[in-house]
Amino acid sequence: MTAHQLNETHDPQRRSWVEPDAAGDFPIQNLPFGVFRRRDGNEGWRGGVAIGKQIVDLAAAERAGLFEGTAAEAARAAAGPVLNPLLALGPAYWSALRAALSRALTDGVDGAGGGGAGGGSEGGGSTDGGSAAERDRWRRCLVAQEAVELTVPVAIGDYTDFYTSVHHATNIGRQFRPDNPLMPNYKWVPIGYHGRASSVVVSGTAFHRPMGQTLGPGAATPQLGPCKRLDYELELGIYIGPGNELGSPIPIAEADQHLFGFCIFNDWSARDIQAWEYQPLGPFLSKNFASTVSPWIVTIEALAPFRVAFERPEGDPKPLAYLDDEDDRQRGAFDIRIRATLASAAMTRSGQAPHVLSVSSYRHAYWTPAQLVAHHTVNGCNLAPGDLLGTGTLSGPTLDQAGALIELTTGGKNAIELPGGEKRTFLEDGDTLALSAWCERPGAVRIGFGEARATVLPARA
Amino acid sequence: MTAHQLNETHDPQRRSWVEPDAAGDFPIQNLPFGVFRRRDGNEGWRGGVAIGKQIVDLAAAERAGLFEGTAAEAARAAAGPVLNPLLALGPAYWSALRAALSRALTDGVDGAGGGGAGGGSEGGGSTDGGSAAERDRWRRCLVAQEAVELTVPVAIGDYTDFYTSVHHATNIGRQFRPDNPLMPNYKWVPIGYHGRASSVVVSGTAFHRPMGQTLGPGAATPQLGPCKRLDYELELGIYIGPGNELGSPIPIAEADQHLFGFCIFNDWSARDIQAWEYQPLGPFLSKNFASTVSPWIVTIEALAPFRVAFERPEGDPKPLAYLDDEDDRQRGAFDIRIRATLASAAMTRSGQAPHVLSVSSYRHAYWTPAQLVAHHTVNGCNLAPGDLLGTGTLSGPTLDQAGALIELTTGGKNAIELPGGEKRTFLEDGDTLALSAWCERPGAVRIGFGEARATVLPARA
Repeated sequence: MTAHQLNETHDPQRRSWVEPDAAGDFPIQNLPFGVFRRRDGNEGWRGGVAIGKQIVDLAAAERAGLFEGTAAEAARAAAGPVLNPLLALGPAYWSALRAALSRALTDGVDGAGGGGAGGGSEGGGSTDGGSAAERDRWRRCLVAQEAVELTVPVAIGDYTDFYTSVHHATNIGRQFRPDNPLMPNYKWVPIGYHGRASSVVVSGTAFHRPMGQTLGPGAATPQLGPCKRLDYELELGIYIGPGNELGSPIPIAEADQHLFGFCIFNDWSARDIQAWEYQPLGPFLSKNFASTVSPWIVTIEALAPFRVAFERPEGDPKPLAYLDDEDDRQRGAFDIRIRATLASAAMTRSGQAPHVLSVSSYRHAYWTPAQLVAHHTVNGCNLAPGDLLGTGTLSGPTLDQAGALIELTTGGKNAIELPGGEKRTFLEDGDTLALSAWCERPGAVRIGFGEARATVLPARA
Repeated sequence: MTAHQLNETHDPQRRSWVEPDAAGDFPIQNLPFGVFRRRDGNEGWRGGVAIGKQIVDLAAAERAGLFEGTAAEAARAAAGPVLNPLLALGPAYWSALRAALSRALTDGVDGAGGGGAGGGSEGGGSTDGGSAAERDRWRRCLVAQEAVELTVPVAIGDYTDFYTSVHHATNIGRQFRPDNPLMPNYKWVPIGYHGRASSVVVSGTAFHRPMGQTLGPGAATPQLGPCKRLDYELELGIYIGPGNELGSPIPIAEADQHLFGFCIFNDWSARDIQAWEYQPLGPFLSKNFASTVSPWIVTIEALAPFRVAFERPEGDPKPLAYLDDEDDRQRGAFDIRIRATLASAAMTRSGQAPHVLSVSSYRHAYWTPAQLVAHHTVNGCNLAPGDLLGTGTLSGPTLDQAGALIELTTGGKNAIELPGGEKRTFLEDGDTLALSAWCERPGAVRIGFGEARATVLPARA
């Protein structure tokens, strides 16, 4: 079993008996993981799986005896306030739990039809959701999404941000070095750097515009003040499953087994603070005031139908052997569509639809997740369950696919006009920025990631 | 009560009834914290305090009823496998525990003499160690240091490395930009960047020479291979106590209350990997294969006698207001002596004394710990108990005070000769690098930090 093989859980004919969500993000082919609690009550945070408008309360279903074998073990590992124990278990457990949930939540599946995807073969599984009595048992474990709050679903040990879009790197580089925008290492090294884990917050968490030191144009001395060039970065986040021991690299052919799933990720950036602070050791306070994740983790297994070949441009160097794998070339990239929208405070007040800033796809990235894992560990660095890898800003090949305002406005020179007539170079107080992501292709059921949304509050005096 | 005030625990007349250690690192004026377990047994890791050749088992002493009030609460918080709960409590608790231990372990103190340093006034304290019966109760809670192993004493949430030695920054910068070695931001911004927490290991942990991508001199394409320019960095680490909420900066005048203590820190660096990977986002795989901490944390309170004024060189700019504080100017710097030694495999085999590479002091740093905390949080970034701040390589004003081989050998151009005739530009397999630190001045008792030591193993094929 490998993570990119299709199985019964991907069957486009499957429909759930649970009412679908309006956005169509959470059909039975998706089954993403999150951590939730009801808003009205003194409940603990616990793991759940989104299905339509509902969430399967994994702790409740496990207590009710609805899982068996490895699926039950996986559900127990997801019953606490963080999903790290589930992430540590690895693909066989994740797959057994997914297969069990899929069977139980499918309309018209009888128990005899199950057993694929590691569930039956591993001794896992679920009770049959097909009969009315069993379905009632499952229904008692559902919690309406509209009644809950969601949180960052994982205790993030270390967070690493990469720079995998050659288009983003080129667009940014061009602003500083018009004749030579791309660094000589770019097509050889999956460029990455360490980020701040503590300031990762869940979608919906408003944050204050950061204060910081900046050197104004033509100024002789810097000053402290509110950031004047606040930007978003349209990224995806990858949660690591089982980790590796310090000193033991993960070969690229095994990297897939260490990937749990994806979230949407907004790496908010203070461009003016960054410009003054980043030499010689990289971005710091320009990034660590807030980073927004979507609450649901779409698993690698759910993404199997949307894996695509990585097409390295003609004439580009062949990757070094530790970054090169035939299977990864054929199936290592993911066609995940991504979109950014902006609504000003005035637009929000008047109920106006948000303005679409850009739409792109993760398939344009220059490095695959497996290459990121192989590179990150080639020196012996140890990854742990729940570590977060950011893809970097996922700008596509054309300007309307750019994933940050610094690109869309060419460094603040060309303002964007919003529908109501307002203009933007960088973000203003009251702006709400929402990132969304989804997968779709002919012959597969569309799955969605939900969103990563936040509103910019004024700087604190 | 502030962290830099002297109290009875600093009294140079105090002597412990516990036998002193040979190095003289752990007199009763020190009382550093660590996490230990006996080597021969199935014991759990737990917190302890070094005194002479012994460790006070805090869990055992607490269970035996030897602490009262806030001191007992602090001891309970230090009884588990990581010290984070103790760090979260804050200075009043740390101080009560220290006062209680100092009274109990002092030779010839009677109970009436205690009560200072928050112990008595906060309702804390300890039973009198002066009587033979009480002393026996304490003695039963001592564990010989030679019988234990020590570990990283804290679950490090996030690790940030700073760059606080202007001499190091100048020495490194000169190798790249002889006419203009220091970046324009250096004297305004306490330069820092995020590091990797998972690869922080305790003194004594050998590690393999990292593999990595490098571009050889004159080469057209990079290759993967063992690092050829492996270096050490002589640093100190600062453990954060109570943290701050996201969005709520810590003012410089309050920063001291958030500092728990210091360890020795070796930020091993692969210079050839760094040179090829670090543009444009900073060091990554060149740093995260291993970072070595000393096992004992010397508390801020223990360091009170060694705080000194920060002397900013004449003509340098005055710090911006958020980094400027009268008390910090007068007492914000620490005169912590630091030393690096190297022993080759041949020297180790023949029992030869290690070669001293350099000796310096942390007092030469350009930014104080309080300035680092104020800067780190000015944008709202949240620190948490157990976060680790590295000071950066602590090179002093002269070349023999340099804290890394890249400086001592001028980028590998001038080899160092070892006592047996071997030469070194960078580290070779089998080399053992040991960092030590201590404080001494007339009128105070010398206190030591122990050491951060590790041996370089060959790269894994």
